[in-house]
Amino acid sequence: MNKRTTPALNPSSLVPPRIRALAPYVPGEQPKIRGLIKLNTNENPYPPSARVIAAVKAATDERLRLYPDPTAAPLREKLARLHSCRPENIIVGNGSDELLAMAVRCFVKPAAARNAGARNLVQFFYPSYSLYPVLADIHGARTNPVALNPDFTLPSVPELKRGRQWNFRAALTFVTTPNAPSGRGYSTAELKRLCRVHKGVIVLDEAYVDFAEENALELALEYPHVVVARTFSKAYSLCFQRVGYFVGHESVIGAVQKIRDSYNVNGLGQAAACATLENLAYYRANFGKIIKVRERLIRELTGLGFAVLPSQTNFILTRPPGFAAERWLAELRDRKILVRWFSHPEVSEYLRITVGTPAQAEALIRAAREILEAN
Amino acid sequence: MNKRTTPALNPSSLVPPRIRALAPYVPGEQPKIRGLIKLNTNENPYPPSARVIAAVKAATDERLRLYPDPTAAPLREKLARLHSCRPENIIVGNGSDELLAMAVRCFVKPAAARNAGARNLVQFFYPSYSLYPVLADIHGARTNPVALNPDFTLPSVPELKRGRQWNFRAALTFVTTPNAPSGRGYSTAELKRLCRVHKGVIVLDEAYVDFAEENALELALEYPHVVVARTFSKAYSLCFQRVGYFVGHESVIGAVQKIRDSYNVNGLGQAAACATLENLAYYRANFGKIIKVRERLIRELTGLGFAVLPSQTNFILTRPPGFAAERWLAELRDRKILVRWFSHPEVSEYLRITVGTPAQAEALIRAAREILEAN
Repeated sequence: MNKRTTPALNPSSLVPPRIRALAPYVPGEQPKIRGLIKLNTNENPYPPSARVIAAVKAATDERLRLYPDPTAAPLREKLARLHSCRPENIIVGNGSDELLAMAVRCFVKPAAARNAGARNLVQFFYPSYSLYPVLADIHGARTNPVALNPDFTLPSVPELKRGRQWNFRAALTFVTTPNAPSGRGYSTAELKRLCRVHKGVIVLDEAYVDFAEENALELALEYPHVVVARTFSKAYSLCFQRVGYFVGHESVIGAVQKIRDSYNVNGLGQAAACATLENLAYYRANFGKIIKVRERLIRELTGLGFAVLPSQTNFILTRPPGFAAERWLAELRDRKILVRWFSHPEVSEYLRITVGTPAQAEALIRAAREILEAN
Repeated sequence: MNKRTTPALNPSSLVPPRIRALAPYVPGEQPKIRGLIKLNTNENPYPPSARVIAAVKAATDERLRLYPDPTAAPLREKLARLHSCRPENIIVGNGSDELLAMAVRCFVKPAAARNAGARNLVQFFYPSYSLYPVLADIHGARTNPVALNPDFTLPSVPELKRGRQWNFRAALTFVTTPNAPSGRGYSTAELKRLCRVHKGVIVLDEAYVDFAEENALELALEYPHVVVARTFSKAYSLCFQRVGYFVGHESVIGAVQKIRDSYNVNGLGQAAACATLENLAYYRANFGKIIKVRERLIRELTGLGFAVLPSQTNFILTRPPGFAAERWLAELRDRKILVRWFSHPEVSEYLRITVGTPAQAEALIRAAREILEAN
């Protein structure tokens, strides 16, 4: 390398300051430990339907050499039938994470924009999905995190108005419903009251809605500024395949389509999701099983002295008794049970535990009892 | 809906002007027509190795319910061994398209940045991959398209300096090498001369490099500002699965890692790519076959009066005789042969034709002869 023509480039000078300053989102661990009971990332304990597995295997042939359907048209048609809307109301993503990121890039003015007012504002309640501020930071947008009530319920519109921090004109607002990490469900009526007085785009992130009593899909079809996010990952046991979708007004969905990578959804993921929609009875039976185990877990942990929040999801948030949640995390891990603990101050006293099979719940309760007895 | 609390929202007012103004990238068609000879999107005519198909089927089981490896660690380790570098030098994407988009978002100052100088500049030669300006527009960056020489060769550094349009400090420069849509290969020596005098990040987009005489991977390991982009789509018959990767300096790769979606590469795509790397002999034999057909195609089409550029890829760019390329597109399509035509003025006289199997090449030549005789 000729030093006269190339002054040595400092590699880190190639990275813009706003990227250097980013604190990346940390996903839950995916350790490969034999016999581990994995209750840390809200995966479904039940496998996909045997028919879905068969459909994916059947699609695995010489056609892998071809590009997949660029707009996931067959899947969007099926989803449109399911949700009584049109394919133009639906965009499919590489997991719903990709769609959340695209919403930020589409509707929020980026970084250096001066005097952007609410146009570069990403708003969300906290605690909720900790990816939202990461996405805002990557885009260089401002964030407006607004606290949920101390019991993780949603502040009412008059409360939000009184509190003055909520911005009804924020370019983009995320509402995790049911909420993660608390598990709280929000009624469609209260979400509707919020949406009605809003001016900016609201994404109702319904990643866990199949385990809840209600969903707010009707709001996405009623209000042009409301988008519902869904995923096949959790309820439909397809985390591995990366398929999520948005439902909303065709103008808003069309805008996100414009910034989508041409072939953003892999072909086998599309095949799996299509087959899933033809076998919904299997999944609905699993939702019932998971809800039953969830309620039992809440009952039994409460009996052991855990404070457990009500849940409309496939996980529970609980403040364990006796000693710090972080130590519980370690004690459970020593017993090959992996749960999730977040260091954010508003939830650092809690553990988030995925609802597994009856046997996994049994093992968790047994371990909790042992830990309490040994301490 | 209460009109007093919600003034009717105009749906299109929710879409920022910069998004409304976007002209999206148009991918090649994926029509489902029986018996169609598909030579329009540079897919490999040969299927993935039977062992790759078997590996994907074997991974298709109850584990679909789990998240995939978030950083594609096993694949990155295999790639690092292949390229004699470290896993930290590699990031895997949902196809190389996702990585190209991430490079723009990572290294280029977005939209509204004033006085950003070269920091919001995306630079590329034209014609080349028509996605680059689309990615720049989505990000709101400025573009600096600089013409290749009329025969699609690369201007030399002195020529670029004389021409004054090339910006050696552009935040991000894309070089498609070998070039698409021309098929021209560029030598590592000439790419090195360009990289040596550059200050900003350069992505050498080697999507087609497996069909070329040389690759420039060594430059990505030598210069911190040089990144090589590769894909499993074309050469490795995995378009359907969406797997591409960047090789570069760990600071630069690490910066892109920071803005990556947590689980951006689907699990079966990772499994397929890993199995591919264990069966390279099969693919290398296919490269040989494709190159042989390519050279035959060039010879025979030249004999029919086509002007065909030399190619280092799995496609050829050719100016057909007699009448306009757009009409050739239609005439070939009438004969169930689909090729690609671009309306951009610098290539609108040409057809881009993917090199298929010997039988497909035969059919193409036969059709071309028929069309010439009938006109």
